[in-house]
Amino acid sequence: MKRIGMLTSGGDCQALNAAMRGVVKTLFNGKEKVEIYGFLDGYKGLIYGNYRQLSGNDFSGILTKGGTILGSSRTPFKTIQDPDENGLNKVEAMKKNYAKLKLDCLVILGGNGTHKTANLLRQEGLNVVTLPKTIDNDLWGTDMTFGFQSAVNVATDAIDCIHTTAASHGRVFIVEVMGHKVGWLTLNAGMAGGADIILLPEIPYDINKVIKKIEEREKNGSRFTIIAVAEGAISKEDAALSKKEYKKKMTNYQFPSVSYEVAAAIQEKTGREVRVTVPGHTQRGGSPCPYDRVFASRLGAEAGKLIMDGEYGFMVGYKNREIVKVPLEEVAGKLKMVEPDASIVKEAKLLGICFGD
Amino acid sequence: MKRIGMLTSGGDCQALNAAMRGVVKTLFNGKEKVEIYGFLDGYKGLIYGNYRQLSGNDFSGILTKGGTILGSSRTPFKTIQDPDENGLNKVEAMKKNYAKLKLDCLVILGGNGTHKTANLLRQEGLNVVTLPKTIDNDLWGTDMTFGFQSAVNVATDAIDCIHTTAASHGRVFIVEVMGHKVGWLTLNAGMAGGADIILLPEIPYDINKVIKKIEEREKNGSRFTIIAVAEGAISKEDAALSKKEYKKKMTNYQFPSVSYEVAAAIQEKTGREVRVTVPGHTQRGGSPCPYDRVFASRLGAEAGKLIMDGEYGFMVGYKNREIVKVPLEEVAGKLKMVEPDASIVKEAKLLGICFGD
Amino acid sequence: MKRIGMLTSGGDCQALNAAMRGVVKTLFNGKEKVEIYGFLDGYKGLIYGNYRQLSGNDFSGILTKGGTILGSSRTPFKTIQDPDENGLNKVEAMKKNYAKLKLDCLVILGGNGTHKTANLLRQEGLNVVTLPKTIDNDLWGTDMTFGFQSAVNVATDAIDCIHTTAASHGRVFIVEVMGHKVGWLTLNAGMAGGADIILLPEIPYDINKVIKKIEEREKNGSRFTIIAVAEGAISKEDAALSKKEYKKKMTNYQFPSVSYEVAAAIQEKTGREVRVTVPGHTQRGGSPCPYDRVFASRLGAEAGKLIMDGEYGFMVGYKNREIVKVPLEEVAGKLKMVEPDASIVKEAKLLGICFGD
Amino acid sequence: MKRIGMLTSGGDCQALNAAMRGVVKTLFNGKEKVEIYGFLDGYKGLIYGNYRQLSGNDFSGILTKGGTILGSSRTPFKTIQDPDENGLNKVEAMKKNYAKLKLDCLVILGGNGTHKTANLLRQEGLNVVTLPKTIDNDLWGTDMTFGFQSAVNVATDAIDCIHTTAASHGRVFIVEVMGHKVGWLTLNAGMAGGADIILLPEIPYDINKVIKKIEEREKNGSRFTIIAVAEGAISKEDAALSKKEYKKKMTNYQFPSVSYEVAAAIQEKTGREVRVTVPGHTQRGGSPCPYDRVFASRLGAEAGKLIMDGEYGFMVGYKNREIVKVPLEEVAGKLKMVEPDASIVKEAKLLGICFGD
Repeated sequence: MKRIGMLTSGGDCQALNAAMRGVVKTLFNGKEKVEIYGFLDGYKGLIYGNYRQLSGNDFSGILTKGGTILGSSRTPFKTIQDPDENGLNKVEAMKKNYAKLKLDCLVILGGNGTHKTANLLRQEGLNVVTLPKTIDNDLWGTDMTFGFQSAVNVATDAIDCIHTTAASHGRVFIVEVMGHKVGWLTLNAGMAGGADIILLPEIPYDINKVIKKIEEREKNGSRFTIIAVAEGAISKEDAALSKKEYKKKMTNYQFPSVSYEVAAAIQEKTGREVRVTVPGHTQRGGSPCPYDRVFASRLGAEAGKLIMDGEYGFMVGYKNREIVKVPLEEVAGKLKMVEPDASIVKEAKLLGICFGD
Repeated sequence: MKRIGMLTSGGDCQALNAAMRGVVKTLFNGKEKVEIYGFLDGYKGLIYGNYRQLSGNDFSGILTKGGTILGSSRTPFKTIQDPDENGLNKVEAMKKNYAKLKLDCLVILGGNGTHKTANLLRQEGLNVVTLPKTIDNDLWGTDMTFGFQSAVNVATDAIDCIHTTAASHGRVFIVEVMGHKVGWLTLNAGMAGGADIILLPEIPYDINKVIKKIEEREKNGSRFTIIAVAEGAISKEDAALSKKEYKKKMTNYQFPSVSYEVAAAIQEKTGREVRVTVPGHTQRGGSPCPYDRVFASRLGAEAGKLIMDGEYGFMVGYKNREIVKVPLEEVAGKLKMVEPDASIVKEAKLLGICFGD
Repeated sequence: MKRIGMLTSGGDCQALNAAMRGVVKTLFNGKEKVEIYGFLDGYKGLIYGNYRQLSGNDFSGILTKGGTILGSSRTPFKTIQDPDENGLNKVEAMKKNYAKLKLDCLVILGGNGTHKTANLLRQEGLNVVTLPKTIDNDLWGTDMTFGFQSAVNVATDAIDCIHTTAASHGRVFIVEVMGHKVGWLTLNAGMAGGADIILLPEIPYDINKVIKKIEEREKNGSRFTIIAVAEGAISKEDAALSKKEYKKKMTNYQFPSVSYEVAAAIQEKTGREVRVTVPGHTQRGGSPCPYDRVFASRLGAEAGKLIMDGEYGFMVGYKNREIVKVPLEEVAGKLKMVEPDASIVKEAKLLGICFGD
Repeated sequence: MKRIGMLTSGGDCQALNAAMRGVVKTLFNGKEKVEIYGFLDGYKGLIYGNYRQLSGNDFSGILTKGGTILGSSRTPFKTIQDPDENGLNKVEAMKKNYAKLKLDCLVILGGNGTHKTANLLRQEGLNVVTLPKTIDNDLWGTDMTFGFQSAVNVATDAIDCIHTTAASHGRVFIVEVMGHKVGWLTLNAGMAGGADIILLPEIPYDINKVIKKIEEREKNGSRFTIIAVAEGAISKEDAALSKKEYKKKMTNYQFPSVSYEVAAAIQEKTGREVRVTVPGHTQRGGSPCPYDRVFASRLGAEAGKLIMDGEYGFMVGYKNREIVKVPLEEVAGKLKMVEPDASIVKEAKLLGICFGD
């Protein structure tokens, strides 16, 4: 018999349930008897021993359900190594609960921060298999993460809606897209929504080039301009600042987010009225799209197979259209960013999209 | 032969094109020959003589298209009676362009502000037929406006997305819904999205009752609370202020909108983390829902019939499931608000929804 | 304390769960203690005593969920009065189980057939409150039934999809829409989808008029024609047949459904290729639309209130935008059909839609 | 200056317009002047010289629009080499019209049949660049075709809708999915929709294994079973027939399609009621999903670049997440099928999905 722990950590996203269902269905279909223990609210559950045993029923009907049935939480403390406010050593607490439940393996679904901790637990001797969850698609070692395509859909829907109102009123409209410090989500939603300008963290923008593009469009008879701005977008000036200078700027930052800074700059320099829309947390919610359901199910199945085969210490990823296992130490702590000269960026430029560079 | 002018004014919404298509298809199917002149960007087009003649082709395939093919603008000047910045008397300019094109009638699609001006033009002797366009559903004289149901759908989608993420993280989430000073959109989207608390302009809220509801939910084991807040929601304290005092408060207002004020109050009084999402302009965009397509088409058909029959001075509205004509003087300047003791509010309360009153 | 039985009967539809949630939330929020017993698979559960007690948890998260958590079945036997195959008197069995559980009231959600049986149970002395469930919108005594608007959305989606392919290939396309012997669903989906021809059970069609319309469209440069055909549509010839003659025709019917008969007639008489699409059962599935969620919740709340007030023998319906109670004896056995001269039909004709009459 | 012809051929699908927009935007953004000639209704337009010159306006707003603005047709004649009914040599006619318009290149969007003809034209000396369009995803030389992911979405929506009604009624439900003789669409929609059984052309099924799976599910307490059947699915018996025997069987085939044969077999052998739903042509219609919009735009951009660089004779495809050019002679006449031992099939089996093999 095998005893498996499972937890979801970090910002939630679509298809977390689909992925867990994939793992569990595979294990329950295997020859060996399996018990599944779900830790609640991410690593917190593992640290404080909050868990419940899960049956097949818990996974019935959740393929299409957003969120996570286990609950999640962002990294619960400043760093996972530091003791908590009661002096508890968190890593030791996790190891203790793992041992207490006599677990054979821990299945961990999460993004970048989650993978750092997962790798730490591996180094501490726990058997770990992970799944790449994030709407940001910024995990190293995998071409794709689940949640990403669903989030592209939500963000594109927002741009589609804005398109009709922008066209009717002849306005400049900014849609701010999630993605932390990487631009995959904005790039894809921007291209899908027909944005005229796309500003990404990886390609610092020159506001004058943005304005030039708007003016060119007007000269060519376009009544409106749609700008997709990544929440992590940054101007050339800011990108040139030292870390200290930039931190200082952001502590006195007068805008709710960078989109409003872009809007203010355009308004100031051109007199045009600019509107900002921020779909925000809706981008990580709702039912997973069919792509993500299939993808997360496949990842989950292969994770289940790894466990049945006793292969631990891997993230289950996606490379060249095949599901692959990637050693955790290769994944942890690295970001997969948009290369400024990636094919997709070049193609976007061929289509006339301006990146402000 | 009849010569018809047409314009769309105010914030755009879904099904404007469907409604215009309805008018024009009906007129083109009639016995009399008809010419249609579309004024661009609302009353501006009528004032400055910006228009183009429209053919059947212009209306082909637009039933499902959001926005307005004529463009729109919010009231272009402080009041329509005042001269513009060049001293032009705008009302006289509109009358002149109407006469110059030898129009038999002007079809005007718009909301409250638009109807005031439409009624003014009627008083000045122009033949006017109007159609009730607004996502706010706040027009007097009609049970329903087109755009409303589509906007309910967009706002509900946002709440649905937030629901899964709120449940996963165990958070209090606020979704801010449009609607100006009336609560129809928030009330319907809130009920459709399963919001636990709904704050409307018509029912000033007591923040302590809001907090009490959150705490009750937690006591009963609910991990999260969803609050739908109308952009025009107001606290009991603010509702009790004199106009002058309130204006003073709002000029130094430290929040982007009332939702953030509610969020801050909950955070301050309870220590809970509260997130705010503002779907914003997406609520007026995108393809109209089937309900709005049928409804706007029906209104348009009846408007076309009024014109063929030479009946002017009416808004085409909806009463007790029939399309009716409502004298413009009865519509202009009045708001249809949510009565605090309306059946739908009582029913929402039976379901356990808290309005903070 | 009150003890309430509940069942859903007939073809399932969207918002059944929303309606039940509305009833139960209202009752649980009331002052009196309440126990809810859910009978499984419609009247079958009541006849054979299959039920389970339901808690608040059963109704959590089901507002947006299609189908029915209680299961449903079409009338399980030829008539409810006849004994079953083991000689059991079904009506007596239902009365016995009602008495055994000491029920104060039975909440029944269903359509026409269901209401006949509900009225019978009322006549037999049971306390009954019903809710109008059907995608057909054909229940007497209410302006609207829940499920209808969601089904309109699904059927319209199908027509929208067909529209782009029909336009690309220049074809005549038929979409067959549900609705049994009434045309509400087809009429609304047809208008929403921009169908050129709509064939309803209530307006028998002349195939030559259908063909004339197709030819007129081609003459005017249209490459394609969309026909929305109700599954109950009927030709003038067939409508003129005696019941016996019609029954004879249908027993040797060579077509899968009437749409294929229409298609064959057009192909035969004009040589044009005609394609048929049948969305079928998808029309009663999927998540309820926001309109239905609000509507079903309101109906459920008022049903809960009736029960708290001890008012039995009513269907909770909708009249002139208010939720009302309608005596069951007025509802049972009557159909609400599309009047051939209803305003909405006239409006559709003004728009140029052909009904083949 | 360059003169480019363009045509779309075969069954239409989503993102054809997006792909053409990509090509044209790229060419118009290039340094060289370009004229675009659109041939109407596929190869027919090229054969009979039906075309119109296209401007940038024709491509504005079509990114999100289903279908094709150029119209399409299935192979207009039995084989493209045979003369038409008036004795016209079609290949010569195409060459003549190509020469007459002094075209530098022909951009052809289509699937398998289309690519055979495109390759023929290349062999005849025309400059050709092609784009892989098909909802079937069966084109050799590319990991993905545009239209596929959108069709997966439509088919999955249908299965989702059927899921709620199947669960409510406890029925066996078959959803028939498009894809001709390949199973990609059914496999993906089936996995995304949570189908329990998936029948593909590439994996002939044993009806007894299908029935065994249904019975197992019931034994484990499942009330319903969803079967996704490819329109090209085939039983082991039929797969074992000689071509002649199979042809004979199909000429007297008593079922509308294979799904009905599967349904009849299950009903006959088990007495269970089985329902069939056929989403049909809806699967190729409607607005392209964001994935397809981005993908088709990227392909279009690279096609435009090839043309600017004077590189002809290629299909623009997708390999290992990069857009690549594939020699037309490698593509034409080959099918990309689902390997019965492909990873995705193995993963589906791990999840417990039955393929009837």
